[in-house]
Amino acid sequence: MKLVKAALLGASGYTGADLLRLGINHPNLKFVELTANTHAGKAMGEVFPHLSNANLPDLVTNDEVNWSEIDVVFCGLPHGTSQKIIQKILSISPKTRIIDMSADYRLTDIELYQQTYGDEHIAPKLQKKAAYGLSEHNREAIKTAPIIACPGCYPTATLLALLPLLKSGVISSDDIIIDAKSGVTGAGRGLKQNMLMAEAGESVSPYAVGVHRHAPEIDQELSKISGKNIVVNFTPHLIPMSRGELITAHVKLDNGSNINDLRATLEKAYKDEPFIKLLDEGKMPATGHVRGSNFCHINVFEDRIKGRAIVIAVIDNLVKGSAGQALQNFNIAFGFDENAALQQMPLFP
Amino acid sequence: MKLVKAALLGASGYTGADLLRLGINHPNLKFVELTANTHAGKAMGEVFPHLSNANLPDLVTNDEVNWSEIDVVFCGLPHGTSQKIIQKILSISPKTRIIDMSADYRLTDIELYQQTYGDEHIAPKLQKKAAYGLSEHNREAIKTAPIIACPGCYPTATLLALLPLLKSGVISSDDIIIDAKSGVTGAGRGLKQNMLMAEAGESVSPYAVGVHRHAPEIDQELSKISGKNIVVNFTPHLIPMSRGELITAHVKLDNGSNINDLRATLEKAYKDEPFIKLLDEGKMPATGHVRGSNFCHINVFEDRIKGRAIVIAVIDNLVKGSAGQALQNFNIAFGFDENAALQQMPLFP
Amino acid sequence: MKLVKAALLGASGYTGADLLRLGINHPNLKFVELTANTHAGKAMGEVFPHLSNANLPDLVTNDEVNWSEIDVVFCGLPHGTSQKIIQKILSISPKTRIIDMSADYRLTDIELYQQTYGDEHIAPKLQKKAAYGLSEHNREAIKTAPIIACPGCYPTATLLALLPLLKSGVISSDDIIIDAKSGVTGAGRGLKQNMLMAEAGESVSPYAVGVHRHAPEIDQELSKISGKNIVVNFTPHLIPMSRGELITAHVKLDNGSNINDLRATLEKAYKDEPFIKLLDEGKMPATGHVRGSNFCHINVFEDRIKGRAIVIAVIDNLVKGSAGQALQNFNIAFGFDENAALQQMPLFP
Amino acid sequence: MKLVKAALLGASGYTGADLLRLGINHPNLKFVELTANTHAGKAMGEVFPHLSNANLPDLVTNDEVNWSEIDVVFCGLPHGTSQKIIQKILSISPKTRIIDMSADYRLTDIELYQQTYGDEHIAPKLQKKAAYGLSEHNREAIKTAPIIACPGCYPTATLLALLPLLKSGVISSDDIIIDAKSGVTGAGRGLKQNMLMAEAGESVSPYAVGVHRHAPEIDQELSKISGKNIVVNFTPHLIPMSRGELITAHVKLDNGSNINDLRATLEKAYKDEPFIKLLDEGKMPATGHVRGSNFCHINVFEDRIKGRAIVIAVIDNLVKGSAGQALQNFNIAFGFDENAALQQMPLFP
Repeated sequence: MKLVKAALLGASGYTGADLLRLGINHPNLKFVELTANTHAGKAMGEVFPHLSNANLPDLVTNDEVNWSEIDVVFCGLPHGTSQKIIQKILSISPKTRIIDMSADYRLTDIELYQQTYGDEHIAPKLQKKAAYGLSEHNREAIKTAPIIACPGCYPTATLLALLPLLKSGVISSDDIIIDAKSGVTGAGRGLKQNMLMAEAGESVSPYAVGVHRHAPEIDQELSKISGKNIVVNFTPHLIPMSRGELITAHVKLDNGSNINDLRATLEKAYKDEPFIKLLDEGKMPATGHVRGSNFCHINVFEDRIKGRAIVIAVIDNLVKGSAGQALQNFNIAFGFDENAALQQMPLFP
Repeated sequence: MKLVKAALLGASGYTGADLLRLGINHPNLKFVELTANTHAGKAMGEVFPHLSNANLPDLVTNDEVNWSEIDVVFCGLPHGTSQKIIQKILSISPKTRIIDMSADYRLTDIELYQQTYGDEHIAPKLQKKAAYGLSEHNREAIKTAPIIACPGCYPTATLLALLPLLKSGVISSDDIIIDAKSGVTGAGRGLKQNMLMAEAGESVSPYAVGVHRHAPEIDQELSKISGKNIVVNFTPHLIPMSRGELITAHVKLDNGSNINDLRATLEKAYKDEPFIKLLDEGKMPATGHVRGSNFCHINVFEDRIKGRAIVIAVIDNLVKGSAGQALQNFNIAFGFDENAALQQMPLFP
Repeated sequence: MKLVKAALLGASGYTGADLLRLGINHPNLKFVELTANTHAGKAMGEVFPHLSNANLPDLVTNDEVNWSEIDVVFCGLPHGTSQKIIQKILSISPKTRIIDMSADYRLTDIELYQQTYGDEHIAPKLQKKAAYGLSEHNREAIKTAPIIACPGCYPTATLLALLPLLKSGVISSDDIIIDAKSGVTGAGRGLKQNMLMAEAGESVSPYAVGVHRHAPEIDQELSKISGKNIVVNFTPHLIPMSRGELITAHVKLDNGSNINDLRATLEKAYKDEPFIKLLDEGKMPATGHVRGSNFCHINVFEDRIKGRAIVIAVIDNLVKGSAGQALQNFNIAFGFDENAALQQMPLFP
Repeated sequence: MKLVKAALLGASGYTGADLLRLGINHPNLKFVELTANTHAGKAMGEVFPHLSNANLPDLVTNDEVNWSEIDVVFCGLPHGTSQKIIQKILSISPKTRIIDMSADYRLTDIELYQQTYGDEHIAPKLQKKAAYGLSEHNREAIKTAPIIACPGCYPTATLLALLPLLKSGVISSDDIIIDAKSGVTGAGRGLKQNMLMAEAGESVSPYAVGVHRHAPEIDQELSKISGKNIVVNFTPHLIPMSRGELITAHVKLDNGSNINDLRATLEKAYKDEPFIKLLDEGKMPATGHVRGSNFCHINVFEDRIKGRAIVIAVIDNLVKGSAGQALQNFNIAFGFDENAALQQMPLFP
């Protein structure tokens, strides 16, 4: 059996940990190096006790890894940091495939990247070698690209819901309003006052209204599919739960379409997709129904305002929104069954 | 000191309990009768142990109350039920003032009521004696009306945010999208599977998309102020928390206005209101910051889409969205300080 | 590959659902019948939307099942009900193995059963064919018994922590105090007011103090191992979370032992057990670290009171405390790898 | 009306904020100075938006306060820090009364303080001027003491439950086991990984087992009342909720007493106390039933083990466990109605 040797960079973050949770049950994947610069030397079980039963290597620094022995790198580092290490890895070991869960190679327009993330992009040439890793919509490019830039969590849910609709012309490219809701893990494991249980619990609030970094990424992909220059409303809210993300897209119908056309379009787009499920008419998507899994549930609803519709999608932000999609892309890139290591059912309740 | 004798109907519901929580500290209000047909005979502390330290009468049935001795009735019964008992009370004791927290007298169009709530309206004549109880916007009528129909929780938050903007013409009456979020107490104390902690916890989901009963009420009041026939998008979501409600209104700017005009309009509308606070620029409203209190926090945000804006309001659904506004209306109706019994600061964290 | 045909009785409960969540990934297990009398005719995805992506048979009544074609029955029915259907199944199809997650065959003393559960035991003879299914401590009996009576969730955590200590004599059989904490799924999916999110959330409270039905079961097993007539203190508390169970056992040291002896005893007892982990000295067990998995984490702590110690164990009540242990017992009974279908890592955060 | 001028030190912590939440409605108390060294210059509403509607002075440093104009100082600073500033205040303004919510003056044995808190005690002489501020049990001393050392939250709940029982001899001073449960606000507002919502949510775990700093304080007060040298078991657990504390005391009956004697003893001790409620037989105390209030609910339960009993008490850790008791002590010390500013009912649900 083919065994792919992997390094995971940033193993002390939630995204890294969730990649391990799922990935250690992959029959063709072996994690040989786990890095976390500030925790180097520790056992993984010290940093994440829930993984103490897994048989994993101890954490090391990035500098300790022999990159030429690594077949695939999963990168769970913060933006900015990812660029540098990826550039270095590919200069040492050009055959190593990169699956990047950070934001560094998602935006094809380098200036837009710099404007959005506030840093100079140090590897603009590599950007051209990156495929946008929205698995269901970019499989061919993912198969061969040296770098797979996994989408942000919000873009994943939004694009899965809207790309087929825009492509088929049943919704308009104007006035797309994305009212988004996310659990607290979306903010990572860093220490922030508003992420304390005492502050985030039992409260809902918006954040980064109009300025969230995932908005330009959504614009980019929607514009690409529609051929128009789309700018979306993007209004995220923090929900008092750990995992899960729901986007409510308020859209205009186009070309005389009605709600049944939207349903038919999504049905057709996803009927053979193992992870995307269009719910039965009237059923409400709930993040709890996809928790811990790579599934995305979608449904469409008639608006009270004529000529409008509501499209709702839910994912687990750490899985389909990050680590799960990374594994799905790994399966695509290395020719394995696309659902290898991703067959876990959601954890409910 | 003037002492008003009150009966609370439906004391075994969350709304009733919250009215008592606040109302028992009102210097001019005395609860002489508490009704709850299925719990009649019990002490209040048996039904709500958190009120066991209060000195309250035991629960009785509606039939046991001598209405002519009651100055004010707070009605926390389900819709349909309220109509009948209110009609009966007013026929026995026409001077008794009614403060209704149910939906029965909110919609002025009787047919719309029947269509929305599915029941025949048995007291259409009384409807004309009812004032819509949005305290800040209808004080004069509230002062004298025999029946004060307290608004629904969602309409309260929505109307506080949008009425001044529509009235002044800075936003358009078209395409008003209300993406709403509520804690589970909005569903009352009835036993429903989706309200179990195991099901509602750690999950976010929409519900009643496009068909929620509060939408026609919002339409009615927005149409009244604007003189146009407004139909809004109303998309409520269930949030894994007990109390709190946030509405995100996605609106179009009108008459060449900009975000500063919206801010100035709200500032002017509410500068003297004790319970309504326009937050400083950039500050995020959070339901946790108004929990347990009668406050409403509002803020306005620029949209990424040109010509649009985002208006966000938060309330505690059981307080400003129900029992607190009922007490505020009581104060208006009986000539007391409007913030009597409502001076509690929010409970945070 | 050997394929075992299974029926799951009570597929509309949390325990049944969790058995499916895990069991559908078992390479040798095929669920051919799912029963739920009140939901018969429905697709599983209607009753539990998180399983809508699984390829499962629709729900039927118990009467519709052809028992002679069933190799193994997983019974997730309430106590009382289980006895009757199990008796019937075994009379029709004596070779069918029964893995019972209910309480009906846990207590060997029929009178104690009747006293504890308030019902007459209708199948006392079958009781003798039942093995107590605490996997790690009763493997030989589990291998061959017609009925495997899976332990209650609290007894599982308690016995895993205490059996080796009592057996080796390092703790006393006197004054064993079990202060237990459980998430709300322990109460099942039935509609109870105190299980509403509004009531169970943001609160901790004891329940069934001194009268919980799991206490006699704990007594029975502790008495068996110690040869003494043990009666324990058992004080469960309801914790505002969905899954997870923690027991804090306050015990007396015996025979001159000290905390290191307790540690060494547990270390020795569980060093080859895949699911039981004695944590490193000083590490705190947390239910979040075993969520969704079949793991049990244990640690021992010195008491401030001389001659005493504290033993703490955590499990997921629906997994190691029920469905996971049922699958583990299935693996033992049918000769499969004991961790087949149980290799999922915990879901954290 | 007498108006007492107060300074609150440490207004940016949860304890300080809760003191303001309640205290601003006190008719005889005026907060003239609020200090928070790291936030000096800010408006209170910036640090705690839920207090933005209150009319409060901006934050200043401790150095900016003119102590001789201050009648009472509420100290919500961390231990160690409190000692120094209190010593300074009393040297400048000996008449100023100090109500200290920190741990600095709780332990009468200076060496024990140093051993417990790891710091040298810089003001051992002042220790003799401090009264232990358990309101119900030390009123006389509180009335006149220059310093009132408010008890820790756990000691408050524990002592309210056990002091009358030990004093009357119905329980033994041996083997007192305090199994405690607390919400996350007990850890304060500091940034700690285990207090992130993603980590603390949906999990229960013990912490500081056998080494918690509140244990010596409990020992001290129990020993004082019993005349014996008591060392208790103290095992705290972190509960996934914001506020609330429950202690489960597992105790031995003494002097031939039974459960009714315990009930009668507590009944007698607290029958005239406005904040302490012995629940009816069989009723379960719940932290949700005292949330946000100064109440303590207590009940006693028969143990399955003969000769033992279980005593359970609940409080809101930030109110009766800190800020509320501080206000109660203020009322005692200044001769006001003991429940002034403390009449709020609990916030449920």
